[in-house]
Amino acid sequence: MESYTRTTATAEKLAEQDRVFQELTQRTRELISAVMTTNADAAEVTAVASEIAALTDRLGGPSDAGSLGVQITSTGAFRNHGNAVVGLRNPCAVPLHIQRLPEGRALSSFRLGAPHEGPPHLVHGGVSALILDQMLGAAAAAGGSPGMTSQLKISYVRPTPLGELTAEAWITEVAGYRTIVHGHIKDPEDRVTVEAEGLFILPRWAREALDRAHRPPSFE
Amino acid sequence: MESYTRTTATAEKLAEQDRVFQELTQRTRELISAVMTTNADAAEVTAVASEIAALTDRLGGPSDAGSLGVQITSTGAFRNHGNAVVGLRNPCAVPLHIQRLPEGRALSSFRLGAPHEGPPHLVHGGVSALILDQMLGAAAAAGGSPGMTSQLKISYVRPTPLGELTAEAWITEVAGYRTIVHGHIKDPEDRVTVEAEGLFILPRWAREALDRAHRPPSFE
Repeated sequence: MESYTRTTATAEKLAEQDRVFQELTQRTRELISAVMTTNADAAEVTAVASEIAALTDRLGGPSDAGSLGVQITSTGAFRNHGNAVVGLRNPCAVPLHIQRLPEGRALSSFRLGAPHEGPPHLVHGGVSALILDQMLGAAAAAGGSPGMTSQLKISYVRPTPLGELTAEAWITEVAGYRTIVHGHIKDPEDRVTVEAEGLFILPRWAREALDRAHRPPSFE
Repeated sequence: MESYTRTTATAEKLAEQDRVFQELTQRTRELISAVMTTNADAAEVTAVASEIAALTDRLGGPSDAGSLGVQITSTGAFRNHGNAVVGLRNPCAVPLHIQRLPEGRALSSFRLGAPHEGPPHLVHGGVSALILDQMLGAAAAAGGSPGMTSQLKISYVRPTPLGELTAEAWITEVAGYRTIVHGHIKDPEDRVTVEAEGLFILPRWAREALDRAHRPPSFE
C-alpha cells in the first residue's frame, strides 16, 4: 500500500491552497449548521438543495471513492487535511486545534454543536471517543512515540453538554513501539465528563514510512 | 433539563418535512465530498465558497448555539434527526441505517468516505468507535434494555479500509438498568477489523422521560 503521496509544490503555493480551502471548508461548516437549524419553509429548502447540487457540480461532483489521503511535502511535513477530527479541508472535522508539548502532552479547547449531538443537547458518546482517540494519538506523537490506536477504553463520568469544552491527554508509559496514553474531556465548569486510556502501537508499515521520511509520522 | 421537545404536527406533515430535509441533507453530503476531493482552481473554489455563504444566509445563517434536539411525536415516536451517526438531517452523519432485531441485535451496512479518514485511505479509529457506540446502543434498545454509554472498550484488530463495511452488535448480559453489549466492524472480505464491548446504563432522567412517554427511548 502506498500510504502517503508526495507533493513538490512550493511553501507559498501550499499556503495559498490552505487559505483557499480553509475558507471553502469553513463556509461549508456554516452551511451544515444552517441545514440543521433552519426554519425556512419547504419551498425554500428545496430551492436551496437544488443550488447546493449546482455548486457540487461546479466543484467536479461528489467522489464516493475518493479520499484526501496524507501528503508529505518536500521538507518532510505531513499535510493531513482530510482527517475526521483535525482536517483543515474536512467540513465534518470540529476542527480540533491541538497544542502539542514535547513531554508527550496534548491540549485543546473546542466547540461542539448540532452535528455532534447524541442525546438531546448532549455530545454523542461516540463523538467524545472520536475526539479522545485523536487527542491521545497526538500526545503519543508529541512525546516522540507515535502509533496507531490498538485499544481504547472510554469511561463516561457525566453527560457532556454541547458548547465550549476542553480536552487533555498525556503519555503514561512507553515500551518500545507501545505507548499508553490517558486523557479526558472537561465541561465549562472544569469537571471531567469523559475519561480515556489508549494503547498505541507503531505498525511495521508506518515504521518503514517513517524510515523513508526520516521523521516520525503524526497521524493527523 | 427538558430533554425532549414535543411536536403536534400530523404524520403527513412530518413525512413531508422528512422528505424535504433528507433531500437538503443528502445534497449537503455530496457537497462535502466535492469540497474534499475537488481539483477546481483557486478562483473557482473562492467563488463557490462565496455562493455557499449566500445559501447559508438564505437558510437563516449558521447557529453556533443551536442543536436539533430530539422530538417526540403525538404517537410517542422519537425523531432523532440531528444524531451524529444516524441523523436524517445531519450532513456529517454517515448516515447509518440500522436493522434492529427484538432479541437485542443490530445490523448495518454502510459506506465510509473522505470525511471519515484518519491514516491515509483508512477509517479514523475514532470514527469506528463512534459507529460502534451507536450500534451497541441500538442493540441494547432493540432488546428492550436501552441506556446511555457508561463504558466502551474498543480493540483495533486490523486497519479498516474506507469504502463498504458492515457492523453488528448484540446484547450479552442484562442486569436491571445495566446492559452489556458486544459488537464489531467487518471489512468487505468479512474480516473483523474492530471489536467493541460496551456497558449501557439508563440514567434516572431518562427513566423519567421514559415514564412520561410510556415507551423506551432509543437514543438515536
